[in-house]
Amino acid sequence: MSAQVSRDVPDIENILALNPRVPKNASLVSSAQTKQNKKHWKRNASKGCSSCPPLQNNFDDIKHTTLSERAALREAARCLKCADAPCQKSCPTQLDIKAFITNISNKNYYGSAKAIFSDNPLGLTCGMVCPTSDLCVGGCNLYASEEGPINIGGLQQFATEIFKEMRIPQIRDPSLPPTEELPSSYRNKVALLGCGPASISCATFLARLGYSDLTVFERETYIGGLSSSEIPQYRLPYSVVDFEVQLMKDLGVKDLTLNKLRDDGYKAVFIGIGHPNPNIIPIFENLTEEMGFYTSKNFLPRVSKASKAGMCACKSQLPALSGRVVVLGAGDTAFDCATSALRCGARRMDLAKDEKCEFLPFLAPRKVLMSNGRISGLECARSEQTDDGEWVEDDEQMIRIKVDYIISAFGSGLTDQDLKDAMSPVKLTRWGTPEVDTETMGTSEPWVFCGGDIAGVAQTTVESVNDGKQASWHLHKYLQSLDNQSVSATPSLPRFFTPIDTVDVSVDLCGLRFPNPFGLASAPPTTSSAMIRRGFEQGWGFALTKTFALDKDLVTNVSPRIVRGTTSGNMYGPGQGAFLNIELISEKTAEYWCQSITELKRDFPEKILIASIMCSFSKEDWTDLAIMAEKAGADALELNLSCPHGMGERGMGLACGQDPELVRNICRWVRAAVKIPFFAKLTPNVTNIITIAKAAQEGKADGVTATNTVSGLMGLKGQGEAWPNVGKSKRTTYGGVSGNAIRPIALRAVSAIANALPGFPILATGGIDSAEAGMQFLYAGASVLQVCSAVQNQDFTLIDDYVTGLKALLYIRAVEGLADWDGQSPPTPKHQQGKPVPRLQEIVGKGLPSFGPYQEKRTAIVDAHYRKADLLAEENKPAAIRPPLQPGKQVPSVKDVIGRALDMIGSYGDLNNREQVVALIDEVR
Amino acid sequence: MSAQVSRDVPDIENILALNPRVPKNASLVSSAQTKQNKKHWKRNASKGCSSCPPLQNNFDDIKHTTLSERAALREAARCLKCADAPCQKSCPTQLDIKAFITNISNKNYYGSAKAIFSDNPLGLTCGMVCPTSDLCVGGCNLYASEEGPINIGGLQQFATEIFKEMRIPQIRDPSLPPTEELPSSYRNKVALLGCGPASISCATFLARLGYSDLTVFERETYIGGLSSSEIPQYRLPYSVVDFEVQLMKDLGVKDLTLNKLRDDGYKAVFIGIGHPNPNIIPIFENLTEEMGFYTSKNFLPRVSKASKAGMCACKSQLPALSGRVVVLGAGDTAFDCATSALRCGARRMDLAKDEKCEFLPFLAPRKVLMSNGRISGLECARSEQTDDGEWVEDDEQMIRIKVDYIISAFGSGLTDQDLKDAMSPVKLTRWGTPEVDTETMGTSEPWVFCGGDIAGVAQTTVESVNDGKQASWHLHKYLQSLDNQSVSATPSLPRFFTPIDTVDVSVDLCGLRFPNPFGLASAPPTTSSAMIRRGFEQGWGFALTKTFALDKDLVTNVSPRIVRGTTSGNMYGPGQGAFLNIELISEKTAEYWCQSITELKRDFPEKILIASIMCSFSKEDWTDLAIMAEKAGADALELNLSCPHGMGERGMGLACGQDPELVRNICRWVRAAVKIPFFAKLTPNVTNIITIAKAAQEGKADGVTATNTVSGLMGLKGQGEAWPNVGKSKRTTYGGVSGNAIRPIALRAVSAIANALPGFPILATGGIDSAEAGMQFLYAGASVLQVCSAVQNQDFTLIDDYVTGLKALLYIRAVEGLADWDGQSPPTPKHQQGKPVPRLQEIVGKGLPSFGPYQEKRTAIVDAHYRKADLLAEENKPAAIRPPLQPGKQVPSVKDVIGRALDMIGSYGDLNNREQVVALIDEVR
Repeated sequence: MSAQVSRDVPDIENILALNPRVPKNASLVSSAQTKQNKKHWKRNASKGCSSCPPLQNNFDDIKHTTLSERAALREAARCLKCADAPCQKSCPTQLDIKAFITNISNKNYYGSAKAIFSDNPLGLTCGMVCPTSDLCVGGCNLYASEEGPINIGGLQQFATEIFKEMRIPQIRDPSLPPTEELPSSYRNKVALLGCGPASISCATFLARLGYSDLTVFERETYIGGLSSSEIPQYRLPYSVVDFEVQLMKDLGVKDLTLNKLRDDGYKAVFIGIGHPNPNIIPIFENLTEEMGFYTSKNFLPRVSKASKAGMCACKSQLPALSGRVVVLGAGDTAFDCATSALRCGARRMDLAKDEKCEFLPFLAPRKVLMSNGRISGLECARSEQTDDGEWVEDDEQMIRIKVDYIISAFGSGLTDQDLKDAMSPVKLTRWGTPEVDTETMGTSEPWVFCGGDIAGVAQTTVESVNDGKQASWHLHKYLQSLDNQSVSATPSLPRFFTPIDTVDVSVDLCGLRFPNPFGLASAPPTTSSAMIRRGFEQGWGFALTKTFALDKDLVTNVSPRIVRGTTSGNMYGPGQGAFLNIELISEKTAEYWCQSITELKRDFPEKILIASIMCSFSKEDWTDLAIMAEKAGADALELNLSCPHGMGERGMGLACGQDPELVRNICRWVRAAVKIPFFAKLTPNVTNIITIAKAAQEGKADGVTATNTVSGLMGLKGQGEAWPNVGKSKRTTYGGVSGNAIRPIALRAVSAIANALPGFPILATGGIDSAEAGMQFLYAGASVLQVCSAVQNQDFTLIDDYVTGLKALLYIRAVEGLADWDGQSPPTPKHQQGKPVPRLQEIVGKGLPSFGPYQEKRTAIVDAHYRKADLLAEENKPAAIRPPLQPGKQVPSVKDVIGRALDMIGSYGDLNNREQVVALIDEVR
Repeated sequence: MSAQVSRDVPDIENILALNPRVPKNASLVSSAQTKQNKKHWKRNASKGCSSCPPLQNNFDDIKHTTLSERAALREAARCLKCADAPCQKSCPTQLDIKAFITNISNKNYYGSAKAIFSDNPLGLTCGMVCPTSDLCVGGCNLYASEEGPINIGGLQQFATEIFKEMRIPQIRDPSLPPTEELPSSYRNKVALLGCGPASISCATFLARLGYSDLTVFERETYIGGLSSSEIPQYRLPYSVVDFEVQLMKDLGVKDLTLNKLRDDGYKAVFIGIGHPNPNIIPIFENLTEEMGFYTSKNFLPRVSKASKAGMCACKSQLPALSGRVVVLGAGDTAFDCATSALRCGARRMDLAKDEKCEFLPFLAPRKVLMSNGRISGLECARSEQTDDGEWVEDDEQMIRIKVDYIISAFGSGLTDQDLKDAMSPVKLTRWGTPEVDTETMGTSEPWVFCGGDIAGVAQTTVESVNDGKQASWHLHKYLQSLDNQSVSATPSLPRFFTPIDTVDVSVDLCGLRFPNPFGLASAPPTTSSAMIRRGFEQGWGFALTKTFALDKDLVTNVSPRIVRGTTSGNMYGPGQGAFLNIELISEKTAEYWCQSITELKRDFPEKILIASIMCSFSKEDWTDLAIMAEKAGADALELNLSCPHGMGERGMGLACGQDPELVRNICRWVRAAVKIPFFAKLTPNVTNIITIAKAAQEGKADGVTATNTVSGLMGLKGQGEAWPNVGKSKRTTYGGVSGNAIRPIALRAVSAIANALPGFPILATGGIDSAEAGMQFLYAGASVLQVCSAVQNQDFTLIDDYVTGLKALLYIRAVEGLADWDGQSPPTPKHQQGKPVPRLQEIVGKGLPSFGPYQEKRTAIVDAHYRKADLLAEENKPAAIRPPLQPGKQVPSVKDVIGRALDMIGSYGDLNNREQVVALIDEVR
């Protein structure tokens, strides 16, 4: 031992030197010095960066919306999950956005994808390309917040991409009659023209309805329509189109690449051929590619074919552009042309931040200047708004610029006369497109439906998808009418299903069959039986009544009595990590509850309904109340021996539950009184919960509920007042802490009881806020799961998230190919801002940090790497997604996972202190 | 009772109808319909919004960075608090950014303002106007994250604005000798020319050093320099300038508004007069305001004088601009001119989002066109970059536009010959500005220093501030050298102080004086005594050693053994709401610890050092170890009777602490062995902690520590493995949960013991992560406060936050004018995106929602309201901030607040269930 032990050895002191210190003085460094220093630390580009490389041949994702799992969880947690969500009303496909974001919050990515694909078969494409600020995001209530609205598109992309990685196929709703049992009207042949978003959507919904002879016809050699040909790889990779077409084909839709529709027996046709012809203004009419002229309609497909590996068999090159390029037009297509042109070698112009394009606003092209048979310049007039608000072109304000290439992106239409003729006898408008009923998407011919650009309503991919969806229902009605079959007056388009949805999550316990293991705890969400009714309607497997007592023990509650937790920092909004309540038992009578039990069991015979009851330590009381509840028809009883506030002072609740002797006796009384199973609800506020559980077992309880809330004082305000405080005197009492903050305590209690009393049923509660948390309690030995705080945070629809989530977790356990996933989370790829980072280690054998001069070097190396990359190389083709990954063994049932973790939870002495781990830094360089 | 109780009465069912439901089918709504629907819900402006009003006469805050308290807390929580923070290295004034954001996270806004003003006397101005993306924010490590870098400027603005609202004056560091005791060299007269950022900064630091005869001279009739004259009100309100000048004057600096410096006896001069003259290109040389020509140097001050109430006595009008305005130049000033022009009535042009200006890039003005003696047009040539990277103006590419006004913003300089002459004999550069040493800010004349624009380094306000700061130190050295006084070789500029810093937070307990109530708990942050040394150096008031034992009980720990909590959702990064550890006691010997105690007490006699010891239930062991620790010089002992894992199996820790009999005996043995005070550290894992505390009291312990960690199982992974799990067998054991998740349990324990055993000292621990949380424990009856998890989340510098925070909380309690604040949080104003929302209720007597058609109506009403507003009206003048708010009574000491909340915490039966509260919606309309 050195002479001075409280100073460490030099190498440790060197590490401590990096540890921050409290400053004693103001710092003093000259501005001239800092101007130098800051360059070393810069993470963003310097102002007027002249060394920033162009984007030549770089087709990586450029979307600011792309999210990693970490960021998606953070963003999803921020969403308010508005009950009446305005975002959903602005989505053309009516996505249940609140639900799919809830699913993400709860790490139920399958549930999220299911919600998305249910309403939008191109959910991943739309997550990537939707102009969300004009759609869902435009309505977000969080516009009023500094953080701004939710990145809905990014979340949608995230969840559907995770699902894509799961490699699970689409199936028809297994609860619907199989196609072979449907009437022959479902075997009518339907042709869908054009394999773009509208047709894919229409075909998918028709197939979900049960139609079995659907064919999509496409004149190009590739699928996807505009998604493939015109939206660039860096906004929508080809693998996404491939994936969504595959999901459609999972349902038996055939796709054919043909030039002509063979008119043999099709009973209905859906036209979704888009706008095949570019709009060209007169001054451009005779210009050719050789002269340097492109339209978006020929430029973008050339770029796509040369940059989207796997799209077609062709092996083509990017158009070689050098020099000045002008793109004319506004909107996404013009932007895509400009950013594509940069990747084809157009000269860089420094203006926009990431995409180095220059904008010249309010110009109307007047004249193309030619030189040696090539385009050399363009003259434009300035457009201005007059004081009356009218836009005029002003010849006195002219602009002349030099250009080498012009790309015209003035939109497109249907101008090809042959195509128009082919649509006969469908009536056309004066613009040459079919006359369409915008509600049914039907045309003048009852057997012809339309969608997408050609139908005249859709201006975006998502609207085209919705046209196809809308048409599918009316096409269905038409086809059924041919065979005189009736169709429900209310549209009922089936949702998205996969084999995951076929997993059985029912649980048998004490002779009762729980349809799923998730139930409503005896708590505020079961304050009235109308709330239990709603819970059952939404899918909860079981429910406890709010605890009721004999009339002589009726209570009146104080207010306020439930407050948010302070255990997760200064975060407000949804997803509170804890609550504290000083609510007593129900204010409603035993008679009310018994009648409710009778009604609810009558209306929901397949659900399990458990009566929560409480008395003081009186044999007679417990006997009377238990019999009353049994007579009403309760499936089981829960004895509340654990309410930590108020009731204890009256000799009830935890006053009984902390003493094994009292617990044993009460259980014996109830056992003697009733035949139905009953469970003792335990308090965690004891030295050893196992003793209490044992007492319940000795008293012949059928199991225990672990645990009730933890006694606590949530917090004091600035002047020392507690919150909640009651009345003018501002007094408080200790309340019950619930929610995630107590999950470690509840998990400990459940697993300790399960290990001590093997086979003794446990109903778990305490921080179950997701399928994932529920699964942890099952692993820890619980049989079924009670929820309260999570419902307080949101609403009853959570059950759908929990059930799909649990099914997915069980299914994934059986799939060998997903063995390295943690629940529904795939291994985290190395990334920055959600996008893979080129790893210099792999390119030049040496990593570099991402700031200052190192960053500049990185960028140069990466740029050089891209320039010589073969975009169409084999390794850039979409990974195979079919055949799907299949469970390699039987998908486990709930009972198969109960208690699975118990063997690994034991005493400290059993831990090996010789097998130590060492932390390593996993650098993204 | 109705026949059906489980369906609610109609009005309740109507409410339930709003409650979301799980969808059974895909939705079906046509795109045409959704195009209509979404308009109803839009929160953002529609694309191509033609009804968006102009900004005429609207000088409200437009900064996207402005934050409400809620948002500031959220943003501050997101900051990583990097140990070696790159942001700080890029700040010209070297702000301790990590510290001031930590302060905000912990609701210590005074601490944050203190950190900011310590290094930057114009901290609020700079928070509002700094081009942070090129400074601090440019270096942020979170550039790699999807959420992006931290909004540092917004946080800086937030904290300093809260401090402004506190109305507390600046004082000199009270630990420095008072000015009247300083040598006469400190009474040298110093003149500072120009009351802009550089001079205000220089004068402030000189005053903090102790100079008592400082005069700032300003030729204008207003203070603030460019901050007042040129930066528009909507970026920097005049009240901010007023506030920061007031802080300077608090230190006795005089400001004079004079045209001439009277040269009577000034020993040193600081020149900070900015760049008074605009740069004008030849083609503009003979243009006048009447013709429609302005420079930024005459346009912006005119706008400021007409829009900044209180800036000067003048009553002027905004320049009336109508028609087309062209602003020439790049940079912030050009932007300010353009956005100001809109507010003066320039015709709106739709392009940029919020600020409706059009950008015409890469143009070089060539010729002004005149008509009837007024400007009518402008001809520009296009600038282009050649392939060599050179910029050239191309006469073949010309642009001609119509304009009514030209505002030239091509920067400024020092061109006025009279001014140049006045600076003689200071040597000038060939550009006519003083030759300046960029390190000392000195000129060729040793008594003349320079800073800001005129010195040639600074391009921003913050760099000007730093010039003044830099000059202050070298001016100080110069002045002291005149009187042959020595100055420390290392610069030591005093920090920012206020009366808050004079609050005494020491605590007397059991005959020991704790310099402040915050100490390091016996836990990982005290693993070695070198760590305690560092803790003491940083300001911790006391420390516990890590628990040590006799050699026969030495342990080896397993690894991993500390994991993050899962109780705050899926959030990573700093500020974990919980940890779980399965760490045993120290691996170091009692000898090591005893020697450490001796060394630390020798080096830090004023700090309190408590030895944490543990033995099994053996009188001899406890006696030996206690005596050993006392002999080493420990101030007190803490008996660890509560470690919840591992040690219990060995008959130690919680195995002793759960049994009152054992606790009583152990305390008796220790009492018999030593004279120093000792405290029993209690476990919360018991049915009734009061029983255990009583046993300790009966055993003559001097107090208790409440509480140790809560036994728990933090979580299980996807396949059922616990985390942490140890070794190849992946086993785990229950560990101790610490951090905020257990704060409600600890607060309950502390207050329950304090109420049960009045006057019995309690050392609190469990989720103390801020002064605010510490204050809650004091209110609940604790005397001093132990911290572990918060240090695990960050580092030892937290103590500075806790001490300043506690001082501020105590001080605020005594200020009548702040009685409606909750701790350091002022009442929340009604706002959206951090900015006050015009309340239609007040303007037209009727509120409107903020979306869809209502939003459009709102906007129109607000626009009309602004147009007729009197910007210079009395009510728009800055609120008076001097005289400062003073404590109306004695500022309480720590002992005055201990146990203050106890009277209000009691039994449920004492709560009044007739005084019920009702929730109301507080709409921002």
